[in-house]
Formats: sequence, C-alpha cells, structure tokens
Amino acid sequence: MTPKNETPTRWKCVCAYNGAPFAGWQSQRGGGAIQDIIEARLRAVFGRGTRIHASGRTDAGVHARGQVFHFDAPWRHGAGKLRAALEAGLPPALQIKSVRKAPPTFHARFSAIGKIYTYHLHLGAPDPFARPYVWVRRRPLDFAAMTAAAAALRGRHDFRAFSVLNDPPRENTVRDLRRLDLVRRGARIRVTAEADGFLYKMVRSLAGALVAAGEGKITPARIAEALATGKRPPSLTTAPPQGLFLERVLYRP
Amino acid sequence: MTPKNETPTRWKCVCAYNGAPFAGWQSQRGGGAIQDIIEARLRAVFGRGTRIHASGRTDAGVHARGQVFHFDAPWRHGAGKLRAALEAGLPPALQIKSVRKAPPTFHARFSAIGKIYTYHLHLGAPDPFARPYVWVRRRPLDFAAMTAAAAALRGRHDFRAFSVLNDPPRENTVRDLRRLDLVRRGARIRVTAEADGFLYKMVRSLAGALVAAGEGKITPARIAEALATGKRPPSLTTAPPQGLFLERVLYRP
Repeated sequence: MTPKNETPTRWKCVCAYNGAPFAGWQSQRGGGAIQDIIEARLRAVFGRGTRIHASGRTDAGVHARGQVFHFDAPWRHGAGKLRAALEAGLPPALQIKSVRKAPPTFHARFSAIGKIYTYHLHLGAPDPFARPYVWVRRRPLDFAAMTAAAAALRGRHDFRAFSVLNDPPRENTVRDLRRLDLVRRGARIRVTAEADGFLYKMVRSLAGALVAAGEGKITPARIAEALATGKRPPSLTTAPPQGLFLERVLYRP
Repeated sequence: MTPKNETPTRWKCVCAYNGAPFAGWQSQRGGGAIQDIIEARLRAVFGRGTRIHASGRTDAGVHARGQVFHFDAPWRHGAGKLRAALEAGLPPALQIKSVRKAPPTFHARFSAIGKIYTYHLHLGAPDPFARPYVWVRRRPLDFAAMTAAAAALRGRHDFRAFSVLNDPPRENTVRDLRRLDLVRRGARIRVTAEADGFLYKMVRSLAGALVAAGEGKITPARIAEALATGKRPPSLTTAPPQGLFLERVLYRP
C-alpha cells in the first residue's frame, strides 16, 4: 500500500441524460435518481462508496446535455479509461461524455459561474420522435409578444416571482439573466436562457411566462411589476419538465 | 338508416411511429402490433371491426415518418375530424399525420410506385437522445469506400443477395434502386434509399453492405458479383432495426 496510490484525485465529469426514465438528479430512498445510479457505478468501479457533487439538481423529467459533477477517487489508468469504466455499466439513457482531472479546489457547484438551459416548445402536433422533448401548444402564439416579454425579463432582477420557493425565501433571489433568446424554426420555438445561476423552477417559470405572453395573458408591464414586487402573476404556469435541457455549466477557464 | 350514410368512403392515412414500443406493423396474436392498435382504435370510433391495409409491413423496432394505410368506412364529419378522432386514443409513440379521402381504386400497397427509407449510422458514442435511432459503430469507416459501394448497388438489379428471403424466392426479386446516397455530418452518416419497392430486410442489408465496405470487408467488385450470382456475401450483416426509418411512400399524383 503506497501512499501515492491512495492519494485521491478530483475528477470533473460531464454527463448527458434523457430525464424520462429517472426520478430526477438528487439521491432518494429506493434509488432511481441519476445520482444513485452513478454512485452505484462508482462503488462497482472503486470498490467503495464515493459521493458525487453536481452543479445542481435537475427535477424528474428534465434532460441534460452537459450536467457536471465531481468526485474524489484514486485511479492510475488515466481519464479515458475511467470514462469507459464508468459508462460501461450505465443505462443507455445516461452517458458520461467526458472525464478530466481537476484541481482539488474545483467544485462542480461552487466553482460554476453560470448555466445555459434551453426550453423547447412545439406548436401543433409533434411527431413521436420530438414529442418526449417539447411542450406541445395547440394554439398559435404571438411571437412578437413573446420576444417583448423576453426583453422585459432579461437582466439583473430579483426573480422570486418567477420561481417556486419557500415563503419567505432564505436565499438571495437576485440573478443576472444574461441571455433569454427565442428562435422560431417551423413549428418549433427554442428558448435559450443563460444566467449566473437559476432559482428553483426558474427556467420553467420563464418559459411559462413567455407562453403566457404569446397567448396575450401577460404584458411586459405586468412582468416588470412582478419583478418589482416579487409576487408571482396568477396567469403564470410552470412549463412541464420534458421541454427543459441543461445544456452547459460554465466555469472559469 | 339512409343508404347514403352507409356508403363507405376509402380513407388514405399517413402515420408516424417510434418502432421501439411496438411489435412491428403486422397484426399478431396477443396484439402489440401497430396494425392491432390502429384497428382497435377504428373499432372504438366506428363501432365495428375495420381492417386496414398498409403500404407494407415494417419489422419490430423499425420507425416510420410516413407509413401509409387505407381503410373503408362511412364518416360524415370530414377528414380533419376523422384524423382527430383516430389519434385521440393512440399511444404517444404513434401519430396519425393526415387523413384524406381517396378514390375507391386507391390501395396503399398496390398503388405505391416507390418508397424512400433512411438509415442512420453514428460513429463513436451517441448522446442518449440519438441512441435509440442509430446503429452505433465504434470504429472509423472509410467514407470513400462506402460511396463506391453505394454506386455499385444503385440501379436495376436482382437484389436477392441483399435481402432475407425464402429459398428459392417465389417473388420477382429485381428492383430498381433509383437512389442510394450517403451524407456525412459530424459523427452521423445518413443513408437514403429509394426504389420502386424493397425486398424483405433489403434496406438493412444495403446498410450492412455499406458498413462492411467502410470497414474494408467488401469491395465494389464483390458487390457486383453478389448482384450477379444472387449469393449473399458471408461478410454481410443485416443492420439492426432501430436505425431504419420509412420516410415516404410514393404514389402517382
């Protein structure tokens, strides 16, 4: 037993998952959460319990193309072989995209300086291949009104009205929504949101607000009022989880 | 009971399905086939058994974006409402894209003058969203060799060597492969095949031949020989069903 071999390395991992078959990210009794499945795999690879730390949890049904987590473990065979070893026993809906050595000060959650999410709307009837990944809206949406609503939401605001929080919230609820873009292509509208961080169910509340604007149920003035007062507009729906993708977690280079 | 109401109309329907949850197209004991599910829905809508006729069957696991079937039934509320009535009770993996009145001489199978399929290959590790719809190839493929193989396969030939048939085949096995194109984009290769008709497992055999060519296991000369002799090359694998999509059935305008 050489002390050198036992010195654990910090590993930064990027993973992708289809949220449908899992009970969300966060570990729960009875398993079935993505964290439980990855930790069970680590136990198989390292022969002992190894806790992982993600950039944040995602709710049941939410997808990820670039969720980040880290863990500490000794491993002498290189990052590429560790990636292959981790992925070998995972279900096909969960993929380890990359594994890299990270400095001991790196933390998937606390080192993050921002996140990018996308939310996908489909107008009309999506085909069976798109349907698991969109929020279906049968009625037309006023795209110009949605764009105006996005402009009212962008920027540094107290977003408690556009989240689902304990009342009163214990945390600081000011976030810098650096980007909130809409792109329409055929029957699809893709919403891209980037911020220094997001409150609980914030992206889905923003998507709900944009749809409400497209249906004529909420105006930019009403959005500005909600941001100022912190009171959630009654017309606001939280968009369903299957349209949401965690695209990327941002770190300093 | 007016005879006019009882005169059945012929309806041409286009449907799309994710093949994964179904036991293929063709009706089978115990149900679970796409035909069984649609016929059960017709029974619910019309109150009586109604047989449907498709352009052809697709095997278990094969997808469709434009499968066509027809049936005869009396219905006085228009094609749009019939589409909605049919789709209301179907599983989300199965979509009725359109319903149109057709002349009584129209037959989904016998009126077809061609079909277009695509087959999708992924080089390396696909993400969880692509994985159910591709054939994953871990090793590099020689794209130029695949293109040369496609050129050797295109045209009017006896394709019995590139199908899975009873021995000896009872049917005419000459088909006109009007198009066999490859498009590479990043890690994906899309094969598009159009012919006046396809033999059983022919597209999957063609995809298997193209991959064998990309792996250096088969040459254009060997392909020409197989077409001439009707003997299936031993190096030929039938590509798995999940990469295959029936895109479109062609009819005279």
